[in-house]
Amino acid sequence: MSEGMKVSVLHGVHDVRTEERPVPEPGPDEVLIKVLSVGTCGSDVHYYEHGRIGDFVVEQPLVLGHEPSGVVVKTGSAARLHEVGQRVALEPGVPCSVCEQCKAGRYNLCPRMRFFGTPPIDGAFCEYVVLREDFAHPVPDSLSDDAAGLLEPLSVGVWANRKSRVGPGSRVLITGAGPIGLVATQTARAFGASEVVVTDVNPRRLEVAKELGATGTIDVSRENLAEADFDPDVLLECSGVPAAAGQAIRKVGRAGRIVLVGMGGDEIPLPLAHVQNFEIEVTGTFRYANTWPTAIALAGAGEVDLDRLVTHRFGLDQVEEALTIAGKDDSVIKAVVLPQEGRVG
Amino acid sequence: MSEGMKVSVLHGVHDVRTEERPVPEPGPDEVLIKVLSVGTCGSDVHYYEHGRIGDFVVEQPLVLGHEPSGVVVKTGSAARLHEVGQRVALEPGVPCSVCEQCKAGRYNLCPRMRFFGTPPIDGAFCEYVVLREDFAHPVPDSLSDDAAGLLEPLSVGVWANRKSRVGPGSRVLITGAGPIGLVATQTARAFGASEVVVTDVNPRRLEVAKELGATGTIDVSRENLAEADFDPDVLLECSGVPAAAGQAIRKVGRAGRIVLVGMGGDEIPLPLAHVQNFEIEVTGTFRYANTWPTAIALAGAGEVDLDRLVTHRFGLDQVEEALTIAGKDDSVIKAVVLPQEGRVG
Amino acid sequence: MSEGMKVSVLHGVHDVRTEERPVPEPGPDEVLIKVLSVGTCGSDVHYYEHGRIGDFVVEQPLVLGHEPSGVVVKTGSAARLHEVGQRVALEPGVPCSVCEQCKAGRYNLCPRMRFFGTPPIDGAFCEYVVLREDFAHPVPDSLSDDAAGLLEPLSVGVWANRKSRVGPGSRVLITGAGPIGLVATQTARAFGASEVVVTDVNPRRLEVAKELGATGTIDVSRENLAEADFDPDVLLECSGVPAAAGQAIRKVGRAGRIVLVGMGGDEIPLPLAHVQNFEIEVTGTFRYANTWPTAIALAGAGEVDLDRLVTHRFGLDQVEEALTIAGKDDSVIKAVVLPQEGRVG
Amino acid sequence: MSEGMKVSVLHGVHDVRTEERPVPEPGPDEVLIKVLSVGTCGSDVHYYEHGRIGDFVVEQPLVLGHEPSGVVVKTGSAARLHEVGQRVALEPGVPCSVCEQCKAGRYNLCPRMRFFGTPPIDGAFCEYVVLREDFAHPVPDSLSDDAAGLLEPLSVGVWANRKSRVGPGSRVLITGAGPIGLVATQTARAFGASEVVVTDVNPRRLEVAKELGATGTIDVSRENLAEADFDPDVLLECSGVPAAAGQAIRKVGRAGRIVLVGMGGDEIPLPLAHVQNFEIEVTGTFRYANTWPTAIALAGAGEVDLDRLVTHRFGLDQVEEALTIAGKDDSVIKAVVLPQEGRVG
Repeated sequence: MSEGMKVSVLHGVHDVRTEERPVPEPGPDEVLIKVLSVGTCGSDVHYYEHGRIGDFVVEQPLVLGHEPSGVVVKTGSAARLHEVGQRVALEPGVPCSVCEQCKAGRYNLCPRMRFFGTPPIDGAFCEYVVLREDFAHPVPDSLSDDAAGLLEPLSVGVWANRKSRVGPGSRVLITGAGPIGLVATQTARAFGASEVVVTDVNPRRLEVAKELGATGTIDVSRENLAEADFDPDVLLECSGVPAAAGQAIRKVGRAGRIVLVGMGGDEIPLPLAHVQNFEIEVTGTFRYANTWPTAIALAGAGEVDLDRLVTHRFGLDQVEEALTIAGKDDSVIKAVVLPQEGRVG
Repeated sequence: MSEGMKVSVLHGVHDVRTEERPVPEPGPDEVLIKVLSVGTCGSDVHYYEHGRIGDFVVEQPLVLGHEPSGVVVKTGSAARLHEVGQRVALEPGVPCSVCEQCKAGRYNLCPRMRFFGTPPIDGAFCEYVVLREDFAHPVPDSLSDDAAGLLEPLSVGVWANRKSRVGPGSRVLITGAGPIGLVATQTARAFGASEVVVTDVNPRRLEVAKELGATGTIDVSRENLAEADFDPDVLLECSGVPAAAGQAIRKVGRAGRIVLVGMGGDEIPLPLAHVQNFEIEVTGTFRYANTWPTAIALAGAGEVDLDRLVTHRFGLDQVEEALTIAGKDDSVIKAVVLPQEGRVG
Repeated sequence: MSEGMKVSVLHGVHDVRTEERPVPEPGPDEVLIKVLSVGTCGSDVHYYEHGRIGDFVVEQPLVLGHEPSGVVVKTGSAARLHEVGQRVALEPGVPCSVCEQCKAGRYNLCPRMRFFGTPPIDGAFCEYVVLREDFAHPVPDSLSDDAAGLLEPLSVGVWANRKSRVGPGSRVLITGAGPIGLVATQTARAFGASEVVVTDVNPRRLEVAKELGATGTIDVSRENLAEADFDPDVLLECSGVPAAAGQAIRKVGRAGRIVLVGMGGDEIPLPLAHVQNFEIEVTGTFRYANTWPTAIALAGAGEVDLDRLVTHRFGLDQVEEALTIAGKDDSVIKAVVLPQEGRVG
Repeated sequence: MSEGMKVSVLHGVHDVRTEERPVPEPGPDEVLIKVLSVGTCGSDVHYYEHGRIGDFVVEQPLVLGHEPSGVVVKTGSAARLHEVGQRVALEPGVPCSVCEQCKAGRYNLCPRMRFFGTPPIDGAFCEYVVLREDFAHPVPDSLSDDAAGLLEPLSVGVWANRKSRVGPGSRVLITGAGPIGLVATQTARAFGASEVVVTDVNPRRLEVAKELGATGTIDVSRENLAEADFDPDVLLECSGVPAAAGQAIRKVGRAGRIVLVGMGGDEIPLPLAHVQNFEIEVTGTFRYANTWPTAIALAGAGEVDLDRLVTHRFGLDQVEEALTIAGKDDSVIKAVVLPQEGRVG
């Protein structure tokens, strides 16, 4: 395959260009994948708007996109897991597999992780990508191409629910009804939670939360969370707003668990006496590990609806539109890019 | 026993009086205990100085003291665990035993807990107390009366180490070399930690920390913790200084565990990205549950030295001195009250 | 309440008599409950047929029945949890609440447990019983009286699933489609298991298993389990047949968990190399602890159907029929006794 | 390095020959190690005596030996962890690192594991071996070459103690005082166990157990274990004798944990009622995962004495003697082979 392919490249703040690059060759343990759908994520938008996220700085042209699905079109010399033609969801980060963190089963904490669309590693807004074969997960026919890509944000939700040990009978508070809050909501229900209350300031998103299984919603622009008649034992903080987090933490009861999923702000004001007196466990998530099988099981069985999240679609030449639509149209939940199309609609 | 006994009573801020009260009668499942030694704790001092700790307010005369040892002198009608004459350490909080928290094995989180020296429950600065028999723990001869009382702070250290899953090979950072920091240090070593580094601003205390097993110490009035060559996977925050806590948290590595033991300040500034990127677990401790057997095993076998902590001793008429000595003399680690003595020395 | 009540008493093997006894008085922390429905269990049948189970021997007249629901009709002097008129499910074993096991949250292992219908403690085949108030669990209107009683066997299923850490994506093998196998099946699904395969030799029961959520069934009188195309990571052994257990154990894959729920036989032949090479965890269940809230949540929300299990109903004068029907009619799944009725039908 | 090296090769039952082979070349991520000491293990003896262990059959010439230490003499093109001259302990099994088990942190259960001295993979009874660099663990000067090799059996002890959650206050029963029982004993003490009772039929070995930290011993050829005054909460079965295991299991108390370490016999008779009534957890160990850091910490700090286990030493030409000495001389605990020597003594 010496032909070229189309790639959408971020050259700097507000500077995305469609270019031509050679189709990559898979290494011995890799597969070449034709990309079918790629979700856009807040972090893609952040790189586009600011050129950096924390210590990760875009210093050379970068391909964004880390929520891809595709189909295997070529296999490396030593690859043995997939046949050509296999449709797959891509787990978009490949760890070293040999360090202390990897060996302990925490490969998401691998200091040598190579993650799609995170400088200097290119992502999936392009026609073809290569990936270590064991990070390409076969998907059942019941999943659409879009849904297969959105197993990535679903994995974030699975990981948050797993870390907080949500199970039958759990009472879960979810702050923020963006894409992550909405997959966390569905996952909590699929994990058996009997009550899932979602907060946001956008009534439209709260409506979607209800539709997707929330047993209650609170519009915190109108209601005071502290006074709400709900006694959660788990908080999944998906808003990334420090003040909201601080308030929500105080709502969690004895022996409760809190997972900080949303990014934003340097410091969360942790209410010490509350955390101590109730022995609350607080942790954060950094991506996920070993979540695709569960995510596939949940979405494949229809317990989680990922297609419902997709509100807008764009072709590869429209990546800039895909990254800016959310700021212009508050009906956006998730915009996806279809790399095999130039323009959609 | 219709005779009276001497009791040291806190009537208000800076107002402690020795008084006469009737010796209490044990209920059916209780024992009457002659008190032999009672450690003083920072919370006793706080009630003496401020008349309250958070929501707990001294609104009526209160007996302080919650680190007692003693000897059983009478048993209730249905009590069956102890013989008269048995020397015991007192676990000073009695939960309801029937609520959700108690049934789950988290009796320290029982909302109906009755805890010694916490308003409105009287403590042990007196000659006799009654206690539910199962909270009086027999102690071996190898433990002194003082040490038997100090199993209470040791329990705090055991609980913190247990919650943070310290074990063979752990690298533990302990901030604060007060009594709790010092028992936490010894416990960490007894749990198998290979490195235990203690910080404080008092060089004398750091010396004691070394003597008791710390593998390293840092005087944070002179050295910058951030630059120290130590890579902990566990932090036991025993200083109660929010800024110190915030700095120490940033020192903890991937998949690390942090237990906030020290009280003080409303809010801890939690560094969000650090907690997320390293998936650090943060929790607090509220007293302890099921720790006396372990504490007795450790102290009884000499793996933890509690007598070394006792620097000053007072009689029951000297409780006020016991509560104020730490403010006047920085050689104080732990002052104990001997309720069977009027004055010591 | 000095009136009498009707009680069904087991006097020895094959000797059940309806008698008159005084209505009991609740102790201070107890409630008096009018019994509405009581499921019959294999252990009731065993006492009726053999007069003993292991070391538990019927040496004096015994009231059987430990799957009861009812309504609170009187409260003890210190009872504060329920109003008269509250409909409740009875958790039928009351532990001491003060021993090491109770304090650790494992009250089912309390050596001083007093369990309904286990010599010498009387059970619920009678019009009224007393119970410590915290073991009477309020039930929602969505649960029938029968279903409220059957929260007891459901608790066995919840406990087995919890111990084996069944969750989203689990592949569960359940051997035995009796009442316990059937509640375990439903619970596994409610816990998120994606595959639940049930074995039995009774095709009618396997049909019910399918109806209640099993994704597959194997009639082991016709098919060889070893050859079945199923690779479970969890085995819930509910048959009580040692040979079946031995065979099923070999079917469990790497890092699998096995819970031995079914009783029967002295020894299970544990395949050593299989358990070692795959590091399989094997444990047994003894009743349950802290399961009613989860069981109520699952059954109350309709995720588990308990009414479907009830195939036969009897009045208090028909307890002997209720205990023998299963041996005569293989359509029996669960026979219940309605103590407020003399005869049913 | 095109020179040759000496290798001790098992050609069949009772047929060991010293031969010449080329020194191997390290692959890109491997190091070449000059072997300094290799412990002999019961499994080496088993292959020598029977030509197989279970499904693993010696079908072609095989080099035994999987308890090696050595020094790095050459590094592969991409190896970056070690300098030439680094003394290392060899973790003798290299997994695929990409399968489900590896990614979950259970690399010992990897179905594609390549383990030293297990057909068809060659072991370390030779002058040089290659190993993936991350499985060569640097050792401190405080460890002898022999001790560095014996970190392998120590890892078995660490893994067994970790699986059974031994900690401060644990009461541990260890059946069998062979090398594994003796390292398990020391490890249990280092993990904080307050009581460690060891059983065997060889009084000499029981003496060594005491010397190495056992708080009690039982010669089960003279005393009945069932009657011993000891109430363990953990059993580490290291004898591999099914009947002994069956008896020891009955000795374990409520909520106890049992780890089956010893191999031997097809089936263990598992006492069902005991396992159920006490909810005992039973599992087996298959080698170990992530244990070397802990083993190095324990042995390096002198908490575990590995040199004490070494009773006999042989050169590479004496491998047959090393494998047969235990059958002739009951003072043998551990025989080691020194591959850089032809003959010792």
